[in-house]
Amino acid sequence: MTPEERLAELGITLPAPPPAVGEYVPWVRTGNIVMTSGQLPWQDGVMAYTGKLGAELTVEDGYQAARLAALNAIAQLKDAAGELAKVTQLLRLEGNVHCAPGFQGHPQVLNGASELLNAVFGEKGRHTRTALGINEMPLNAAVLLCLFAEVEA
Amino acid sequence: MTPEERLAELGITLPAPPPAVGEYVPWVRTGNIVMTSGQLPWQDGVMAYTGKLGAELTVEDGYQAARLAALNAIAQLKDAAGELAKVTQLLRLEGNVHCAPGFQGHPQVLNGASELLNAVFGEKGRHTRTALGINEMPLNAAVLLCLFAEVEA
Amino acid sequence: MTPEERLAELGITLPAPPPAVGEYVPWVRTGNIVMTSGQLPWQDGVMAYTGKLGAELTVEDGYQAARLAALNAIAQLKDAAGELAKVTQLLRLEGNVHCAPGFQGHPQVLNGASELLNAVFGEKGRHTRTALGINEMPLNAAVLLCLFAEVEA
Repeated sequence: MTPEERLAELGITLPAPPPAVGEYVPWVRTGNIVMTSGQLPWQDGVMAYTGKLGAELTVEDGYQAARLAALNAIAQLKDAAGELAKVTQLLRLEGNVHCAPGFQGHPQVLNGASELLNAVFGEKGRHTRTALGINEMPLNAAVLLCLFAEVEA
Repeated sequence: MTPEERLAELGITLPAPPPAVGEYVPWVRTGNIVMTSGQLPWQDGVMAYTGKLGAELTVEDGYQAARLAALNAIAQLKDAAGELAKVTQLLRLEGNVHCAPGFQGHPQVLNGASELLNAVFGEKGRHTRTALGINEMPLNAAVLLCLFAEVEA
Repeated sequence: MTPEERLAELGITLPAPPPAVGEYVPWVRTGNIVMTSGQLPWQDGVMAYTGKLGAELTVEDGYQAARLAALNAIAQLKDAAGELAKVTQLLRLEGNVHCAPGFQGHPQVLNGASELLNAVFGEKGRHTRTALGINEMPLNAAVLLCLFAEVEA
């Protein structure tokens, strides 16, 4: 099964890759590595999850925000690689969580992204991860993710 | 025009690459990728912009701080590559902004860096970007940037 | 002397590489680059340093926490490369410090990691570094580090 077929099986429609929100580009490629810019929980052009974990948002909200931002990251990979079957290995997920004082549930939040990546890419979806709590996020977004992937030459 | 010529046209003199502020090095190269350490808004050995966006600093201050830190990053690339014409593609700008509670203008601040990189490197200057708000920055710096670039073999 | 011999000379026993704390993997390899996930100050399965620099923790605590997290990162490299002599160059240390308001001693804290890496790997241990202050860290950890290294083909 291709990643596109797995997405279909999960009932997920891949969105258009969101544009940059500044004077940069959404992804670059060097050799067989693709790096995305920061991915936010955009849905149909609206920031779907704003605010801080541990304040306005629950862990379940954060999980859904991370899943949505990861879906946008997959859309960037598709734009970069043409088809997702050309992704040979996911490499790195940078997970940044918008946190109110005292919040420590970063891993549960970021599993919303990791579990989607693993479901869509299978063994090729296994990735490293960082997890940071951020005091003030651009556009008040709940999460910001970056994804690095290895793609076919 | 070379990047050095573009800098001259902009009336900008490339500074000496600032030294590290700890037991590390300002840049490394692996294959044809150069990665810099965190770049701060140093000017002639003085931290030119300190404090937090949304408190002591305006968005225009932040823009200038990001531009200055990006200029220091360009100085590191020149040190690494010998001449800036050997930079074949900028890859990634990590943009960290020192934020007081409630600040959300990261994109406007970081455009100070991105617009300089685009002006100096043209098409080869197009880069991905991350944007995070940091509660406490080393040396109270207004911004900290990292730059990844692809250079000639 | 191999890195393993230098560790022995320093009286340090390399721990088992800590497992991931979520749906990800502790390291990946692409070409001759190894990237680790976020490394925390685990010691024998216990988070040895929790809390914030500038509040519960002193700079010396932070130094030791960074050294311990770096040791865990070395354990990941050993797991990835088989033997540490196959590490041809350390590339990048991402240094994230859990900070209470007003803390600015990130460089002194992160030197705990950098000095260990330099001692163990010698010239091959020279690395770039980023330093950020984080308001809320996963699991309340004092520091979170990532390490990128170049290894033999």
